[in-house]
Amino acid sequence: MQRELFIKMVLDAWQTQIKRADDLFNELPDDQLMMEVSPGRNRGVYLLGHLAAIHDRIFRLLNVGEEINPGMYEIFVASPDKSGVKIPSISELKLYWKKVNAKLTEQFNKLSTDEWFQRHTSVSEEDFKKEPHRNKLNIIITRTNHLASHWGQLVFLKPKNQE
Amino acid sequence: MQRELFIKMVLDAWQTQIKRADDLFNELPDDQLMMEVSPGRNRGVYLLGHLAAIHDRIFRLLNVGEEINPGMYEIFVASPDKSGVKIPSISELKLYWKKVNAKLTEQFNKLSTDEWFQRHTSVSEEDFKKEPHRNKLNIIITRTNHLASHWGQLVFLKPKNQE
Repeated sequence: MQRELFIKMVLDAWQTQIKRADDLFNELPDDQLMMEVSPGRNRGVYLLGHLAAIHDRIFRLLNVGEEINPGMYEIFVASPDKSGVKIPSISELKLYWKKVNAKLTEQFNKLSTDEWFQRHTSVSEEDFKKEPHRNKLNIIITRTNHLASHWGQLVFLKPKNQE
Repeated sequence: MQRELFIKMVLDAWQTQIKRADDLFNELPDDQLMMEVSPGRNRGVYLLGHLAAIHDRIFRLLNVGEEINPGMYEIFVASPDKSGVKIPSISELKLYWKKVNAKLTEQFNKLSTDEWFQRHTSVSEEDFKKEPHRNKLNIIITRTNHLASHWGQLVFLKPKNQE
C-alpha cells in the first residue's frame, strides 16, 4: 500500500510537469517557439525536441521498449542548438512530444509495483545491490526535475505580463 | 525498508538540486546576481531570496518549527521583483539561503519514516484521509521541482560558453 502511494506521488509530479509543458507548447505560437528563450540561448523549438528526445530514452531505461524515433537523440541531445543540423518542423516535434509522453503513460500504467523498484537498465546488477535507490521510479524523479528546469526557461517565451 | 528507500530517493533528488543551486550561487559574482536572468525578468538576487523564502516555509509545512525569517516571504514571494520594496544585501541573502537549507537538512534527518508519510500542515485531516499522497514527503517532491525550474533560469546568469 505504501509502495503504491509512493509511485502515485512520483507519477503525479511527473504528470503535473508534463501538463504544464503541454499547456505552454499549446499556447506558444510557432514564431515564438522559433525564438531563443533568452538572448544567445536555446530556441524553444530545440528545447521541445530535446525534452521529447530525452523522454523517448525512458522506454529503454525502464526496459519497456525502444525509442519511437531514435534519430532525435543525435539532433536534440548530442548536438547543441543552432549547430547547423537540420531539425524537424514544429508540428512534427509537437506530435513527437505528444506521442512519446502518451506512450510513456501507457507503459507506466502497465508496470507493476515490484517492477518500479527494480533496477533501471543503466545500472548493473552488482551496483544495484549496493544502490537500490537506482530503480525505475528514480528515473521518473530525475526526469521530472529535468523537465522542470527547462520549463523554467521555456516560460520566458511568453509575453512578460503573462509570466 | 522500502519506505526508507523512498525517503532516500526523494531527499537525494532534493540535495542534488540544492547542491546545483549552491554551486551556482557560489560561482556567480555579485554583479551578475544583480542582473535579470533574461531581459525584463526576475533578477538573480530576487530568485535567491525567493527560493530561500519558499524553503523557509517548509518548516511550518512539515510541522517542525517556524520560519527563520518570516519577513522574507512578503519581500520575495508576495511581492514581485523590482516592486520598490527594499531587499537585503546579496551576502545576507546567501547566508539566509544557507541557514535555511542547513536547518532543513537537520530537520529532515530527525523525521521518522512514519512522520514523512503523515499529512503536511496545509491539508486537513479529513482531506488527508481521501488523499494520503499529500504527506510531508510530497512537499519535498514539489519543492524540488520548484527549485529545478528556477535553477534553469538562474543558469542564464553564467557566461554563455560555460552554460
